[in-house]
Amino acid sequence: MKIGKATVPQSAICAHNPEAIVVRGEDLCNGLIGQIGFGDYFFLLLTGRRPDAPASAVLNATLVAIAEHGLVPSVQAARMTLAAAPDALQGAVAAGILGCGSVILGASETAGRLFDEIDRAAPQHGGDLRAAARAVVADWRSRGQAVPGYGHPVHKDRDPRVAALFRESQRAGGGQRFVQIAEAVEAVLPEVIGKPLKLNVSAAIPAVLLGVGFPLRALKGVPMLARCAGLIAHMAEELEQPIGFALSYQATREERYTGVVPEGFVPVQKID
Amino acid sequence: MKIGKATVPQSAICAHNPEAIVVRGEDLCNGLIGQIGFGDYFFLLLTGRRPDAPASAVLNATLVAIAEHGLVPSVQAARMTLAAAPDALQGAVAAGILGCGSVILGASETAGRLFDEIDRAAPQHGGDLRAAARAVVADWRSRGQAVPGYGHPVHKDRDPRVAALFRESQRAGGGQRFVQIAEAVEAVLPEVIGKPLKLNVSAAIPAVLLGVGFPLRALKGVPMLARCAGLIAHMAEELEQPIGFALSYQATREERYTGVVPEGFVPVQKID
Amino acid sequence: MKIGKATVPQSAICAHNPEAIVVRGEDLCNGLIGQIGFGDYFFLLLTGRRPDAPASAVLNATLVAIAEHGLVPSVQAARMTLAAAPDALQGAVAAGILGCGSVILGASETAGRLFDEIDRAAPQHGGDLRAAARAVVADWRSRGQAVPGYGHPVHKDRDPRVAALFRESQRAGGGQRFVQIAEAVEAVLPEVIGKPLKLNVSAAIPAVLLGVGFPLRALKGVPMLARCAGLIAHMAEELEQPIGFALSYQATREERYTGVVPEGFVPVQKID
Amino acid sequence: MKIGKATVPQSAICAHNPEAIVVRGEDLCNGLIGQIGFGDYFFLLLTGRRPDAPASAVLNATLVAIAEHGLVPSVQAARMTLAAAPDALQGAVAAGILGCGSVILGASETAGRLFDEIDRAAPQHGGDLRAAARAVVADWRSRGQAVPGYGHPVHKDRDPRVAALFRESQRAGGGQRFVQIAEAVEAVLPEVIGKPLKLNVSAAIPAVLLGVGFPLRALKGVPMLARCAGLIAHMAEELEQPIGFALSYQATREERYTGVVPEGFVPVQKID
Repeated sequence: MKIGKATVPQSAICAHNPEAIVVRGEDLCNGLIGQIGFGDYFFLLLTGRRPDAPASAVLNATLVAIAEHGLVPSVQAARMTLAAAPDALQGAVAAGILGCGSVILGASETAGRLFDEIDRAAPQHGGDLRAAARAVVADWRSRGQAVPGYGHPVHKDRDPRVAALFRESQRAGGGQRFVQIAEAVEAVLPEVIGKPLKLNVSAAIPAVLLGVGFPLRALKGVPMLARCAGLIAHMAEELEQPIGFALSYQATREERYTGVVPEGFVPVQKID
Repeated sequence: MKIGKATVPQSAICAHNPEAIVVRGEDLCNGLIGQIGFGDYFFLLLTGRRPDAPASAVLNATLVAIAEHGLVPSVQAARMTLAAAPDALQGAVAAGILGCGSVILGASETAGRLFDEIDRAAPQHGGDLRAAARAVVADWRSRGQAVPGYGHPVHKDRDPRVAALFRESQRAGGGQRFVQIAEAVEAVLPEVIGKPLKLNVSAAIPAVLLGVGFPLRALKGVPMLARCAGLIAHMAEELEQPIGFALSYQATREERYTGVVPEGFVPVQKID
Repeated sequence: MKIGKATVPQSAICAHNPEAIVVRGEDLCNGLIGQIGFGDYFFLLLTGRRPDAPASAVLNATLVAIAEHGLVPSVQAARMTLAAAPDALQGAVAAGILGCGSVILGASETAGRLFDEIDRAAPQHGGDLRAAARAVVADWRSRGQAVPGYGHPVHKDRDPRVAALFRESQRAGGGQRFVQIAEAVEAVLPEVIGKPLKLNVSAAIPAVLLGVGFPLRALKGVPMLARCAGLIAHMAEELEQPIGFALSYQATREERYTGVVPEGFVPVQKID
Repeated sequence: MKIGKATVPQSAICAHNPEAIVVRGEDLCNGLIGQIGFGDYFFLLLTGRRPDAPASAVLNATLVAIAEHGLVPSVQAARMTLAAAPDALQGAVAAGILGCGSVILGASETAGRLFDEIDRAAPQHGGDLRAAARAVVADWRSRGQAVPGYGHPVHKDRDPRVAALFRESQRAGGGQRFVQIAEAVEAVLPEVIGKPLKLNVSAAIPAVLLGVGFPLRALKGVPMLARCAGLIAHMAEELEQPIGFALSYQATREERYTGVVPEGFVPVQKID
């Protein structure tokens, strides 16, 4: 029996034997448990190294910033799912996680890619970040790609989490390069896309994280882990004070059926 | 239009207006971001209050203890899912979360219920925890219910995470009542079920968390959030060094087809 | 290397070689494709045998009956999920499937177990189905277990799908034993639980399926497969006429925040 | 209170009142249940019209063709999930559905888009399908986009389901335009990409479905619904003959840990 190299699973994250568990090269039981906070452990799991002080402060700040914003669509989906399947908490949390897609929470990663592209384009513009931002944003627009991380349905001025994250990034001594790039994009948006959209939390997250060495490819994991915490809190509340069916009832109170009906059929109307 | 009370969704977790976001009564941007670690924030989200020092230490210790244990089934399921659908990171993480069920990670919550029942039964046994444990475990067995949190396929002696968590619980000044109950159960198992099963991490988690005021009902959330962190790390590795299909290939190398076949059909054999 | 029997995966569903695929003993390409409808194929996949004429008629009738009932909670959850993650159709469908739990679509299986228990209890009651139903339902109630499959929030009289399924069961020559049991339960409910709840589709499905040899253990799969078809149709409509965010907006129009707020904070109100 | 048009949910799929349910304009209980097979009902749900005879035959043939192919990765993920969370059948099926992504089952939709593009490009090539296929495939390749639906790890010659689906398409009188396009692509692949990859089922599905008026945008739904049936069958088998943990055990028998270890630590080895 000969198995090619490609078919042998390998991983650098965890090893164990009956007496010990090793995670990212460290002894879990005698080096990590009790000696590292959960936010920092997430950094270690992801990158293979412990965060330095700025990375720890900034990562925890972003996780706290994005974990919870009330009855957003993914929380509603999870609460409805738990109402229908109360025995399967994991199913409801999974349903909520499935809403962490490109339109909503995925914007953190896409904004990170935008900033990274501007960073790499800057030298061609003599280091002028606004010029680089103008060029890259115009290029994204010309390819029909939305500019992520700007504008918010509730927080019309700058999302208040932006100032909080930028403040913590400075206080912690995180690199400010990508904060400057994020602000350069904000500055050029009115001329490039014709709308004065302000920074929201999804742009602030990569702006501060890229400055402390958080990997670009893993950005999407930050809102996902954070929202998982918020979802679990909502599920605990749902089990005690269920609103899943109330949300569903409200959602369709003004529903309109736009199809045809057989002769004589009158659809039910919730509102007279 | 009149809508009954039960149909109006309500929640005590989060409120916001254009300038501010309030979570559990605190100003997110000027009181939480930068001033609370992610593990502690999870406690606040869940319970509505900040953890005291023992609760903070113990909760972070449990989250670190359970986040990662290598290529366990839920991680395999997630890596296979990402290999098949690499654009949807959230789908792969959700697939992994769906494996946090009663048999595997749900044991933390069930063990917590067992310990809680023993705690409440103790007075009827003159406060003798072993006697109470003996009675309650025997009762669970008689109802055909498995005793969760004892025995481990790899860690035949006590799972090394147990000692680490008990050590941190003591160091942090957490209540030891439920640790004693967990050990009482371990002590009576040989006579009640005939097997000397040792404490594993799923029993140690409720043992230390119930001693610092973590809510019984929310126990299942701890392994779920923790594993979410581990899953995201595995997904980041999968995107760089894919093994999803290799795992799947290996899994079926010795597969046996046990159904009938049409005449002349010879199924493919991976191994000669 | 020695691997124990229990660790070798085996399955009786499908085998293949480079030239052919065998499903449940039949040649997929020269015996099934083009020669069996999808509903019947589901029966073959599940049971290992082709349905006879009554089983085919009744199974297809139940799949059609339960596939679609408008913007129910699981469809709302799926549409919200697609709005947030439009690139991952599979994620939105999965979110909808996760709502097929014990409270909603799982009732078909639980009702099937109830009917099966009554069927087996009947001899002790001289074959009197009402007496057996009275005893079994009273027993379920005394154990705090809900009686599934009776009552409907919209269809206060009998759910119209019940008559349709019973009619098809008779027309197709399906066994009527479990239909009689379902009606016996309906008849005794007023005296046993004090409410004249009428049969709904979730009780009618097992009533007709158990009469054509559909396996009790697989009942939950019928609403799940059926709803998958409905969900896919809703996702196709969502991609052309999105309402995911509108549903979410409506759902929280009258939301009440019941927690505390910092001094001076006024939460946003959607309705004045 | 004034709610803008965009915030009122609307749908053309289903309406109901206490006595009746209307689906796509037809009375569910007196026009559909018992009078339409499940495969045809899926077409009606999706498109708003009943399939004609060719569409019915071809759609059912594709659903049967793609429903089941043994212990593929998504089935393994689902079986592992059920082993870990046996109470939540819906969670295991959802985990399997999450594997219906771009790499595996999504290829049907992507191949459909390729064929559609070739169809529209053909006039510019004087109607020569091979020329059009050559140009479009070359263009996809130049943009780094994989050509979906050709080549199969097991079925090195043409996947046997291809001939079966093409045979049924002809027998049913379905349009052959897209079959010709699919074969034109197969013919030009050796010169354009340098590999003689043969048609697989994921290309055959859109080839026959687009010829009977099945909507391009809904193609991804066909493998998803079909696999849902296969997944449910595997879950029923898993509940009776569990192999979820055996699959997981096998998958990591040759696992290699590639990270560093603390001094003196020897990871467990499954194979000596």
